[in-house]
Amino acid sequence: MEKDRIFLTKAIEIASNAISEGGGPFGSVIVKYGIIISEAFNRVVLNNDPTAHAEILAIRQASSVLRSHDLDGCALYSSCEPCPMCLGAIYWSGIKKVVYSCDRTDAENAGFSDKLIYNEIMLDPSKRKISFIRLTDSGGEEVFRKWDEKENKIMY
Amino acid sequence: MEKDRIFLTKAIEIASNAISEGGGPFGSVIVKYGIIISEAFNRVVLNNDPTAHAEILAIRQASSVLRSHDLDGCALYSSCEPCPMCLGAIYWSGIKKVVYSCDRTDAENAGFSDKLIYNEIMLDPSKRKISFIRLTDSGGEEVFRKWDEKENKIMY
Repeated sequence: MEKDRIFLTKAIEIASNAISEGGGPFGSVIVKYGIIISEAFNRVVLNNDPTAHAEILAIRQASSVLRSHDLDGCALYSSCEPCPMCLGAIYWSGIKKVVYSCDRTDAENAGFSDKLIYNEIMLDPSKRKISFIRLTDSGGEEVFRKWDEKENKIMY
Repeated sequence: MEKDRIFLTKAIEIASNAISEGGGPFGSVIVKYGIIISEAFNRVVLNNDPTAHAEILAIRQASSVLRSHDLDGCALYSSCEPCPMCLGAIYWSGIKKVVYSCDRTDAENAGFSDKLIYNEIMLDPSKRKISFIRLTDSGGEEVFRKWDEKENKIMY
């Protein structure tokens, strides 16, 4: 628990420093075997990349360091609760532990859409602010059939 | 609607071709002004990157082409319903229209975790399979205070 505080303090420090570097106010570190293997701050505006949240960048960097898409055994520390995009990335990565300081309501009060997106994601696709249109007779299932038949594939 | 079918067919074709190229069975294209400005397939295993879903890569590429983190006016076509990570990325990007073929249940039947992650995201953080620990007295709110005070910042 004491170590959790140390790594979280580091993530918060990265978030704070990001502001003067033109980044967004979010920072993350990823830890494996008690060592920080990646750290990042939000670079959405700096990189012209809406996916460049601190957590996404830290996950991509950790995967690169470990040369694997599987980050099992890693923990993520973040200055704020991960948004739905980053939460999804955490599940896909195999990370099993997340420690954070602020939450989605704090982020909302600071002007960010985290909470709105959490609310939207829970709605049926047809009820969301974004138009989600499913064309059912469009043949997509043929792709999964081909995938099923492929031998020696790596699942992820 | 006819155009929607054409762009969706292209996304499905990309997904199908991905399988023989070592990619995952998912494809996406992003359209602006009736023109495809980016296309991608799932490269999680190829790139050692758990965030390298077709939609994320297409969004990153479109942002790079347009030199903006804001993809307002763009539509995304995807062979399968976007997972929560990609859904979050779509909201952050400003895309307002998504057209897809298969859904999260089809993806689950093909061995992917999309539906599981949708179910997890709706739970209170304390009830999830991944351990989410909030340390409330850790000082993260100080970062948002600093952000509030910053002048001429670009919101996103």
